[in-house]
Amino acid sequence: MSILVVGSVALDSVETPMGKVTEEVGGSATYFSAIASLYTNVNLVAVVGTDFPKEKIQFLSERGVDTRGLQVVEGETFRWSGRYDYMSNITETIDTRLNVFADFHPVLPEGYEKSDIVFLANIDPDLQREVLEQVSGAKLTMIDTMDFWIENKRDSLIKTMSMVDIVTMNEGEARLLGETESILTAARGILELGPNMVIIKRGEYGCVKVDMDGYFTAPACLLEQVKDPTGAGDTFAGGFLGYLDQVDEFSEPAIRRATIHGCATASFTVEEFGVARLRTLTTEEIAERYQEFYNFSHLHDW
Amino acid sequence: MSILVVGSVALDSVETPMGKVTEEVGGSATYFSAIASLYTNVNLVAVVGTDFPKEKIQFLSERGVDTRGLQVVEGETFRWSGRYDYMSNITETIDTRLNVFADFHPVLPEGYEKSDIVFLANIDPDLQREVLEQVSGAKLTMIDTMDFWIENKRDSLIKTMSMVDIVTMNEGEARLLGETESILTAARGILELGPNMVIIKRGEYGCVKVDMDGYFTAPACLLEQVKDPTGAGDTFAGGFLGYLDQVDEFSEPAIRRATIHGCATASFTVEEFGVARLRTLTTEEIAERYQEFYNFSHLHDW
Repeated sequence: MSILVVGSVALDSVETPMGKVTEEVGGSATYFSAIASLYTNVNLVAVVGTDFPKEKIQFLSERGVDTRGLQVVEGETFRWSGRYDYMSNITETIDTRLNVFADFHPVLPEGYEKSDIVFLANIDPDLQREVLEQVSGAKLTMIDTMDFWIENKRDSLIKTMSMVDIVTMNEGEARLLGETESILTAARGILELGPNMVIIKRGEYGCVKVDMDGYFTAPACLLEQVKDPTGAGDTFAGGFLGYLDQVDEFSEPAIRRATIHGCATASFTVEEFGVARLRTLTTEEIAERYQEFYNFSHLHDW
Repeated sequence: MSILVVGSVALDSVETPMGKVTEEVGGSATYFSAIASLYTNVNLVAVVGTDFPKEKIQFLSERGVDTRGLQVVEGETFRWSGRYDYMSNITETIDTRLNVFADFHPVLPEGYEKSDIVFLANIDPDLQREVLEQVSGAKLTMIDTMDFWIENKRDSLIKTMSMVDIVTMNEGEARLLGETESILTAARGILELGPNMVIIKRGEYGCVKVDMDGYFTAPACLLEQVKDPTGAGDTFAGGFLGYLDQVDEFSEPAIRRATIHGCATASFTVEEFGVARLRTLTTEEIAERYQEFYNFSHLHDW
């Protein structure tokens, strides 16, 4: 089994109440692969500029991530800088420089098209469809998106949503898309567009999975300190799809366990800046945290 | 078994995106009693003015609530008016007129002092202690509080916290009290003051129970429409303590089930303005919603 991820590999500058980092490796495909590779085989498609310090994602290759799909293009790597203020609940993008990402078109190296699961991280919905057309045999497809595409490429996004199995986004984005305060109403609106399942990410509160049969709420663990929330959503996707690919089962019980894996793996990401915590993360640590989720969320008997 | 509740009986004027009501019966003791009385015997202590339309809380007496402790004092009833704006996450108090509540001192009618469980809703921590001194034999005591007391009567509040078994508040209030973004850190800080347990209410996200052994997260159900969030916290307390009093057991499994009862009962409150939904609520409906909580939050196997 294997997963294809198409997204960004970037250089992030981040400031939080806990400190700041400058031009550290980030990007949705990086975060996703760092986690999913602890579960299964990952095929990565992204683009960087000639300035990218490839040794900084050497740990992905060491975990077996196939990086043949990482295009290196003359120019500068995608850069994002942002600031989080927890107490006032502010996430502010200070600067986005797409650079080589502006002209990115996903090219799948030979063999990638046979990936069992496809995750299209938050990129232009036009590009997401370009990939979908190349992987028509996938067992499971999932897309992430963001407010920018909801506001500026709504029709294209809706078209892409109609082609996939699972749509994921943050709850604020779901409210924006559905023009409703209720994430349940928003999720049901998305289901009507075609996908079988919607996963709404709720940050420190976990996530909700909604399908035609109902919904499931997965909790998050409580943390004493969040150093940097960047990448939590992509690592959620990495744990969620990584687990599903590993067990090769898409039943309701498997999906529920997968959401817990997603929330558990995301909880590691925020413990350190950038991908620092993920570099050393082990499957044993994930198993321990999964057990913690059982401890703090199960009822002994209903 | 029986529960003593000391709090407010008020006339609320509320505006939400779903509509508005003027001078409807509200108050923490009203909401609490409306729910707790579906589980067990409730002894109510509060004060209203001579202008209070007592027939509006007749439904409490019909559910067996002992209202001998409802003082009627010459003057006007406590009035609160507020506005909720969900999309911008605003809860705004427009006006608070304490009226007869300003000079309130809880007086326990004969027999009330033998209540097994005591709930001191959000009132002056000095008054909470006045009650605690009269109910030294209670099996379980719990207080609620709010930002006003944290900011203006911190020392008194801390003294009161040291005297009770359970402290509850909203997560924003916990952060304010603990001067930390982490509700886990905040809760642990409160535990150091003396109580055995802290319950942090998280609105649409459920609640967290924290004690020396760890924590437990209880989910909330997803709603398509929230007409009026007023009283949700007090009805949470009503379901939580009502269940515990009914089963007369304070073990960890019972506490966990009780938090689900609290979240389930609170979910009814917000379906209509004021106490409208609670007037007709039945134990059968609560049992059905409890089952829904099982359906949307359990894992088939870990």
